[in-house]
Amino acid sequence: MAGTADNRARIGVLGASGYTGAELVRLLARHPEVELALLTADRRAGQEMRQVFPQFAPLDLPKLQSIEGLDWLGAGLDLMFCALPHATTQKVVQKVFGELPAIKVVDLSADFRLADPAAYARWYGHEHHAPELQRQAVYGLVEVYRERIRHAHLVANPGCYTTCAQLPLIPLLKAKAIDPDEIVIDAKSGMTGAGRAAKEEMLFSEVSEGFHAYGVGHHRHMAELDQEFSLAAGREVVVTFTPHLVPMNRGILSTIYVRGAGASPEDLHGILARTYGGEPFVHVLPFGAVPQTRHVRGSNMTFIGVVKDRVPGRAIICSALDNLTKGASGQAVQNMNVMLGFPETMALEQVALFP
Amino acid sequence: MAGTADNRARIGVLGASGYTGAELVRLLARHPEVELALLTADRRAGQEMRQVFPQFAPLDLPKLQSIEGLDWLGAGLDLMFCALPHATTQKVVQKVFGELPAIKVVDLSADFRLADPAAYARWYGHEHHAPELQRQAVYGLVEVYRERIRHAHLVANPGCYTTCAQLPLIPLLKAKAIDPDEIVIDAKSGMTGAGRAAKEEMLFSEVSEGFHAYGVGHHRHMAELDQEFSLAAGREVVVTFTPHLVPMNRGILSTIYVRGAGASPEDLHGILARTYGGEPFVHVLPFGAVPQTRHVRGSNMTFIGVVKDRVPGRAIICSALDNLTKGASGQAVQNMNVMLGFPETMALEQVALFP
Amino acid sequence: MAGTADNRARIGVLGASGYTGAELVRLLARHPEVELALLTADRRAGQEMRQVFPQFAPLDLPKLQSIEGLDWLGAGLDLMFCALPHATTQKVVQKVFGELPAIKVVDLSADFRLADPAAYARWYGHEHHAPELQRQAVYGLVEVYRERIRHAHLVANPGCYTTCAQLPLIPLLKAKAIDPDEIVIDAKSGMTGAGRAAKEEMLFSEVSEGFHAYGVGHHRHMAELDQEFSLAAGREVVVTFTPHLVPMNRGILSTIYVRGAGASPEDLHGILARTYGGEPFVHVLPFGAVPQTRHVRGSNMTFIGVVKDRVPGRAIICSALDNLTKGASGQAVQNMNVMLGFPETMALEQVALFP
Amino acid sequence: MAGTADNRARIGVLGASGYTGAELVRLLARHPEVELALLTADRRAGQEMRQVFPQFAPLDLPKLQSIEGLDWLGAGLDLMFCALPHATTQKVVQKVFGELPAIKVVDLSADFRLADPAAYARWYGHEHHAPELQRQAVYGLVEVYRERIRHAHLVANPGCYTTCAQLPLIPLLKAKAIDPDEIVIDAKSGMTGAGRAAKEEMLFSEVSEGFHAYGVGHHRHMAELDQEFSLAAGREVVVTFTPHLVPMNRGILSTIYVRGAGASPEDLHGILARTYGGEPFVHVLPFGAVPQTRHVRGSNMTFIGVVKDRVPGRAIICSALDNLTKGASGQAVQNMNVMLGFPETMALEQVALFP
Repeated sequence: MAGTADNRARIGVLGASGYTGAELVRLLARHPEVELALLTADRRAGQEMRQVFPQFAPLDLPKLQSIEGLDWLGAGLDLMFCALPHATTQKVVQKVFGELPAIKVVDLSADFRLADPAAYARWYGHEHHAPELQRQAVYGLVEVYRERIRHAHLVANPGCYTTCAQLPLIPLLKAKAIDPDEIVIDAKSGMTGAGRAAKEEMLFSEVSEGFHAYGVGHHRHMAELDQEFSLAAGREVVVTFTPHLVPMNRGILSTIYVRGAGASPEDLHGILARTYGGEPFVHVLPFGAVPQTRHVRGSNMTFIGVVKDRVPGRAIICSALDNLTKGASGQAVQNMNVMLGFPETMALEQVALFP
Repeated sequence: MAGTADNRARIGVLGASGYTGAELVRLLARHPEVELALLTADRRAGQEMRQVFPQFAPLDLPKLQSIEGLDWLGAGLDLMFCALPHATTQKVVQKVFGELPAIKVVDLSADFRLADPAAYARWYGHEHHAPELQRQAVYGLVEVYRERIRHAHLVANPGCYTTCAQLPLIPLLKAKAIDPDEIVIDAKSGMTGAGRAAKEEMLFSEVSEGFHAYGVGHHRHMAELDQEFSLAAGREVVVTFTPHLVPMNRGILSTIYVRGAGASPEDLHGILARTYGGEPFVHVLPFGAVPQTRHVRGSNMTFIGVVKDRVPGRAIICSALDNLTKGASGQAVQNMNVMLGFPETMALEQVALFP
Repeated sequence: MAGTADNRARIGVLGASGYTGAELVRLLARHPEVELALLTADRRAGQEMRQVFPQFAPLDLPKLQSIEGLDWLGAGLDLMFCALPHATTQKVVQKVFGELPAIKVVDLSADFRLADPAAYARWYGHEHHAPELQRQAVYGLVEVYRERIRHAHLVANPGCYTTCAQLPLIPLLKAKAIDPDEIVIDAKSGMTGAGRAAKEEMLFSEVSEGFHAYGVGHHRHMAELDQEFSLAAGREVVVTFTPHLVPMNRGILSTIYVRGAGASPEDLHGILARTYGGEPFVHVLPFGAVPQTRHVRGSNMTFIGVVKDRVPGRAIICSALDNLTKGASGQAVQNMNVMLGFPETMALEQVALFP
Repeated sequence: MAGTADNRARIGVLGASGYTGAELVRLLARHPEVELALLTADRRAGQEMRQVFPQFAPLDLPKLQSIEGLDWLGAGLDLMFCALPHATTQKVVQKVFGELPAIKVVDLSADFRLADPAAYARWYGHEHHAPELQRQAVYGLVEVYRERIRHAHLVANPGCYTTCAQLPLIPLLKAKAIDPDEIVIDAKSGMTGAGRAAKEEMLFSEVSEGFHAYGVGHHRHMAELDQEFSLAAGREVVVTFTPHLVPMNRGILSTIYVRGAGASPEDLHGILARTYGGEPFVHVLPFGAVPQTRHVRGSNMTFIGVVKDRVPGRAIICSALDNLTKGASGQAVQNMNVMLGFPETMALEQVALFP
């Protein structure tokens, strides 16, 4: 339990038995500057990670522990990832900061994403349990908030749908290049976005060979979209957003319909190409080309394409990422790299697994 | 080769080795009032249908023939379905009408769908080869043109994407209940819509576990949409339409974004519920519910749902059908039933195959 | 609640909210001689079938009821299907026979498949609750026991894996054409065979894009195999049997390795071709050809192929069926047709849905 | 075209537009000791790799070239991978060795796998074009031939099915622990094993939602199995082998039925556990556990499980690997690492991508 001889950062993953937890372990296991020092999974406490995710059998990993009664001081973590169910994170983070004030936290839940306590209460139906922490939390969209993340102690890792929509839209809203009142986001996600909880509607036989929308007209991810789009536009923005489920494991494609505000589709493409020219994890395709989710599978990349619609003044933007990587755990590791001063791309260089 | 002793209508399927051809055979094989008298497939001529589609092995079906040199008089067909590649149908139909003036034709290609020869030439890049037939052709959306179809000799069976979008939108445009300038159709189709031709981009390993848009900003189905929507609205309508490919075999889901013109989302739902209350193949779900493609798989049903968007004045409409059944061969059989005076639902009563 | 004016048989489906229940409703809804008079589903009691399986929305079906407290006399059923979880059927059937002695029952569970009470107790770990009924039950493999089924009151519908293996092997064992000590059955099933219960290992993301064996070395279906193979061979037969899960919804393929006992692979094919020449639901392919599950999807067909192995004396037999149709509910309807004197193929004529 | 300033080995990939070519590029792009200096693809010559495989868009890779007219001296390769169609490799390798005698070659085709020219001619229907090279070629199953590979100039990378079957069976045959006359290998592969050539039977709609065997009774991989199993057993071995296609992209599971020769199933497990205890890419599961292909997806691991059958004396062995990684390109990189003196696991440490 004491320290290791090496200088690697000691990292914990809370909630390692879920999909985002497993994806964190997959990425961190190959990170040369960190050591996986703590893995928790309440219902699987006492088990080996290989019993929960057999792909880790060849690796030497710590046993799964319960959060309850954990010796935080002994764990001596430099940073922990929280991949816990919604609303359970707030109290855990509060307690850990109490015992280990110097620890850094990347939270993958929605608990700290909304800066406004009133918005949180409205969308989630209860008061926030740790409003003082919410005030300190930095929204972890690295391409937008890199400098603030560098000095943050608590980073709220963005949602998968929101990352996919924000990366193309925030630069366009900042540039006032599109009409904020005419944005339609039609999003399609793979099934891992729904998590590993056993629900009838997520069974293979319910999901394969079919397609449908859900949460139509209202979906909690909208709160994050509203917040960040309004900040970018400097005015209130409310978009139309419809999520769908695709019979595949990984990937989100957002098809986004916008109307240029004095800007042509080519102009919009130019803004995105300039914004992301130096970014390692956002790739803007040539004008007129569109991305496919399979080409970012397992990688931390976002691919963005801009196409001219035949309706004058309108453009169609497609944005693709892997919901478990750039949409969750990959972006979380990217945040960690920034927070701990490692090269931002470290352990995130894997090329997509296609086919 | 002469007539059979029974009174069943003699039916031909041209292009029986493709997916819509096979779907026609599947449905017609159980139709009590017809006899499958002729099957053609140029490249597979001389073979048995079971060699091309083994599921038909238990059935007694005519051998596949080549169209070239066919004895049309001897075939003595009452009606034929053309499931041929685009632009090959025009001359075939011309020739057959020359030899068998009383034959009726349901064409599943796009060849006769556009009433305006100029529109045809613009979208397809060449003059129509049989403009006099194009003038006689009736657009085969039964729910809209049932009476004209009853007396038609040549019916142009609508496209799969267009059927899925027209069924919900035509009644709303006719009622002037939505703004014709703000329609966005985000459509997702299963892979059988791409046909059976061997193309790299349709291989299993290219398609599974991924999602993407194609034909963004321009797609030939738009021509049909323009025509029928403009007719319904009484003015020119140009919609935004984006097709996507889903890693599944069958099904189309269209997510349609509209703005009410003095009509609430509830009003739009009411119009659709009233329009389709007596229709056997269109089912309008309760307000706020959305359909799934899997629940219409293999059936001739269209399921439609209407939901209120959180953006004031906007509604989201989801429409689902099986692209091979109501989107192609099922609708073609429905047209045949109307044209030959059979009960419209005959051989189309199958419930969806789910799971 | 009294009788209907018509003469159709009154049918009940117990356990209508599971997959085999839904498949029964799909098939029976189009059966011209029966009326769906009762549907039960304990956890969904009071709901409409469309809430549990939306594909039935266009049909007029009775509400789901709870078995508890059912008025069996009032229901006045001619025949009921039991699609209940294992070990719950025995007491229900006992009770119903007490109230409606003339009712006929087709049970889709494993409860009445084993004729020997000792075998039942050994495989299932408890004494049978209704041993007197077990003695009356007829094993419902129609192609083998048709005459006994015609007069049965209680039919134990065979399991999906066992049907798929028994149809090719029983005739060969009866003819003493293969060595009973060298049979290896490597079986692969679609996911619907696992039912609709929400289990983590059946989630889409756990199952898609992967393949594995389960129950290796021991599996309850083996008890049925032992019983019927031993009866056919006239001596004890114990086979090697390994089930696997395929990322697809429907279908079982059994690859069966046998050694001829004085019979060549061609001889084995000849025996099967002769045995099944007149059977409507078993199709033996030409020698050397092998079946695919997709070509029997949604149909009641079994396709069987026989191939010569390069190892002298050995043959490889492939057998394919749809686990929900011929492997469960289709065979159950076939049993009903025999028990009630309807044409055996009635409501089972659908051609497979491919693609 | 000249050299780079660094000391990295210059590597070529011939046939980079196929799936094994892309997998090589995926792995090599992150290998710190090599430089991808040459990529060829005859039909795509002149294009960028990103046009053929968009996932590589963020990488800086050489343009695709044609083999015809290549300046081999100028290319100055240290090692080249041949991922070319069968029978085209022999002449290419002959020519390249003529111009660059010091080059090392890892061939992923079947061209150099059979040591016996007569066996080659019998299985492939023509004389070998480079018999003198065939004599020098080393069979590249690293776990068996590591020392010979270390000094080889030409390595024949084993086939995917054969790797999956040989890793568990060779140690057992060497130990004379199983009966060589009673081996049945029932193998199931994902679709990428069929390559990227556009064939009707590999279309998504033909393959998804179904399962079937192919090449039953005869399959070219058998030649490799015969050769290596006979070498291991010290006598002629002919096994029964049946390949099947699974609707998934990656993975092979072999279910292998054996009879112990004086060895219990536990003994067989012990032999394998001891043989592979120190191997980085073969993991033997605890006795009685079986592997799943999804847990090795994208990794270079082979997982092996041994289970006791209920038939006395028989054991069932399951072996799982990713056909594109350990079954092809991963093993090829492993061979390269051995041939060039790099750590054997370099660039192959990725954990499987699951879910």
